[in-house]
Amino acid sequence: MAEYELHYWTGIQGRGEFVRLALEAAGAAYIDVAREPEAQGGGDRALMRRLRHTSNPTPSFAPPFLVHGDFTIGQTAAILIYLGPRLGLVGKTEREVLWTHQLQLTIADMVAEAHDTHHPVSVSLYYEDQKDAALQKAKDFCEQRIPKFLAWFEQVLERNDAPGTHLAGGRLSYADLSLFQLVEGLHYAFPKATARALAKAPLVTRLHDTVRQLPRIRTYLGSSRRLAFNEQGIFRRYPELDA
Amino acid sequence: MAEYELHYWTGIQGRGEFVRLALEAAGAAYIDVAREPEAQGGGDRALMRRLRHTSNPTPSFAPPFLVHGDFTIGQTAAILIYLGPRLGLVGKTEREVLWTHQLQLTIADMVAEAHDTHHPVSVSLYYEDQKDAALQKAKDFCEQRIPKFLAWFEQVLERNDAPGTHLAGGRLSYADLSLFQLVEGLHYAFPKATARALAKAPLVTRLHDTVRQLPRIRTYLGSSRRLAFNEQGIFRRYPELDA
Repeated sequence: MAEYELHYWTGIQGRGEFVRLALEAAGAAYIDVAREPEAQGGGDRALMRRLRHTSNPTPSFAPPFLVHGDFTIGQTAAILIYLGPRLGLVGKTEREVLWTHQLQLTIADMVAEAHDTHHPVSVSLYYEDQKDAALQKAKDFCEQRIPKFLAWFEQVLERNDAPGTHLAGGRLSYADLSLFQLVEGLHYAFPKATARALAKAPLVTRLHDTVRQLPRIRTYLGSSRRLAFNEQGIFRRYPELDA
Repeated sequence: MAEYELHYWTGIQGRGEFVRLALEAAGAAYIDVAREPEAQGGGDRALMRRLRHTSNPTPSFAPPFLVHGDFTIGQTAAILIYLGPRLGLVGKTEREVLWTHQLQLTIADMVAEAHDTHHPVSVSLYYEDQKDAALQKAKDFCEQRIPKFLAWFEQVLERNDAPGTHLAGGRLSYADLSLFQLVEGLHYAFPKATARALAKAPLVTRLHDTVRQLPRIRTYLGSSRRLAFNEQGIFRRYPELDA
């Protein structure tokens, strides 16, 4: 019996992946509802119906959302602040909880910018129909934003004097998992620009490697539950954008 | 003696305004540090130095950040989740805290999109140098995104059966204040498109009016502490973008 229900689009890692990694790293009992067979409530159309369900007093603007008992919560970072203490993926003090959350929100800002490199004008237009602006935006993202964000994460890791390579304190947190996923996505979408920036961010590189080697994460990454990156998700490999 | 120190750029409302409104609505003792005289640590250059201060173990990626005693916290939504219970601007249960936060994060998403209408390509280029993409993005924002977001907030207000006009439960929360500010900004930047969308969102309109009439907010809006909107902030009035 699954304790948690994750609701997210079927074909992409997307923002759902940040929640999935937390659930997987903790060995939580969950189902990825939309990826179940249609007879069991699966499919994107059922997800869309659930998103628009008129009886939910806490509707989400967009997936992902999490159902836990009779509580529904949306917005990736809010889901993670809810799950953090329950999954043992955050420190115990208020300050640790909030610092971890601040890190997550900054990761989310960079994820949004990465997405907008291929959709700078509108999510309702095709990439091909906004390619001129995409080329400009991606150039700025690769030359300015990737180095700036990764340098900031490197600085956070440098200033953390607790043992191990973690963003917050001396333990694995959901922010570490999310930074791993962010670096994964950057590697996929912007391999050249990311390699350049990571050459100056050895602690970010080490954190990424450490998370990848966590037993449950290794198992997950090798399983069919881990979708491959593709050109419908947040991180898309359009070689012309890797400036 | 000010209990809270808010650190934000001097010349714009920006993201700092969401924090300022919470502090003002609660009558909190705070100072807006960068707006103090330079001899008292004011000015944008001092803010930048403080942002880059190497001894801070919880550095922010960007302003705003809040200093409370020996704790520094950044990211607007994280600042508000910290201040909410301290200022009496959020319900007491975990669910109320998280639902209010989910609302805030959705407001933040729309604020980021509003900003990107004039800077779709890069924050380091002038508006004039990305105007073609800005015109396209603003058209999509006005025609698709403003109606979609405001319809969602309207739905949230419709489903809240507690007395009064509040997003979460029967009390004023920081999310109500933030939605007020979002509507203020939309009115300033996109008066025609916003009037069209608000005509279909009577509860959002009523919430905006209610917040404006709160005694402390009225006083604040009439004071010199409230900066005017301008063309350096998030919400800019470029008539050609109001599609």
